[in-house]
Amino acid sequence: MQNERLSQQIAFLLELDKLKRVLRRTKPVGSERYEDSAEHSWHLAMMALLLAEYADETVNVSRVIQMVLIHDIVEIDAGDTFLYDTAARQQKQLEEAAAAQRIFGLLPPDQATTLVDLWQEFEARESVDARFAYALDRLMPLLQNYHNAGYTWQENGIHKAQVWEANQRISDSSIQLWHFAQHLIHDAVERGYLRP
Amino acid sequence: MQNERLSQQIAFLLELDKLKRVLRRTKPVGSERYEDSAEHSWHLAMMALLLAEYADETVNVSRVIQMVLIHDIVEIDAGDTFLYDTAARQQKQLEEAAAAQRIFGLLPPDQATTLVDLWQEFEARESVDARFAYALDRLMPLLQNYHNAGYTWQENGIHKAQVWEANQRISDSSIQLWHFAQHLIHDAVERGYLRP
Repeated sequence: MQNERLSQQIAFLLELDKLKRVLRRTKPVGSERYEDSAEHSWHLAMMALLLAEYADETVNVSRVIQMVLIHDIVEIDAGDTFLYDTAARQQKQLEEAAAAQRIFGLLPPDQATTLVDLWQEFEARESVDARFAYALDRLMPLLQNYHNAGYTWQENGIHKAQVWEANQRISDSSIQLWHFAQHLIHDAVERGYLRP
Repeated sequence: MQNERLSQQIAFLLELDKLKRVLRRTKPVGSERYEDSAEHSWHLAMMALLLAEYADETVNVSRVIQMVLIHDIVEIDAGDTFLYDTAARQQKQLEEAAAAQRIFGLLPPDQATTLVDLWQEFEARESVDARFAYALDRLMPLLQNYHNAGYTWQENGIHKAQVWEANQRISDSSIQLWHFAQHLIHDAVERGYLRP
């Protein structure tokens, strides 16, 4: 292959196969196995496409989709960190930043810069698009756990206050989706899926 | 939940978890298991984002991404059909059309119509965007099989003429990617991954 640019792009795309091996703590509804971060990223992209109308401020759907598609790629090196493992999440930041440099650095420089910038924007959670992408990343596992009778919460001894705290930042982006999330949390406690 | 529209969207998003159970014939590079159609769809979306510059005619990257994100959703009902099982592929068309009506039909009517239209556009392979999405859907498993030492080809007794025929429509959308694909096919035969 003589095209150096295409070689770099293909090397990056092949590297992405490794995200299919990174397991999360959540199971797809009705499945016996944990889901991986690649299929989770696809699911969030579909969520962005369909729920963008609920963002309080108008989002650029195409950018939100790109953001959720790439948001977990650093886990190829850094692994998935459980939402409720607060100590580990703080330590992970340096590791993830190094992962972003290595993995996106496989790409031609212009594309590497674009994707590193987009990932940093997601992590900073300041822009309208990033706050909405973050809200979706919270809402999806809440939804899955609710419909799996609280599987991940039970397995890890998670109680309502933790779920509330972890998810309340949905309200930074969408009051309607936060109302929906609150409804799920309350109902999960009532049904015994989640400890009060 | 009082919002009927949101209820429909959430029901659809939960239904999508089932695509994570639909297995393809391809294994992620270096993995011992078959990949599922959800992670494959994510991988194609990343490919669309990064390789759009190789399309012979300018594509709308955002539309191509949406197309590949939804292109396999009908498999929730109809299952994955092996690329080289030509007879089965023809029979599948009616089944997939019914699946599109049922699954996208879970959504509010406006979104259902948008996604059914987009899926039909992908299937028709006539528009610039659809031809490029189709080219990516061919190139990815070729790339994975090449880097898995021809695993799927060996397992199913596939020979070069079949791979050539199945992939030559890449040339309808991108001469450069078709040249790259030809190089992979030739080299796969030379390395003994693929029968001449």
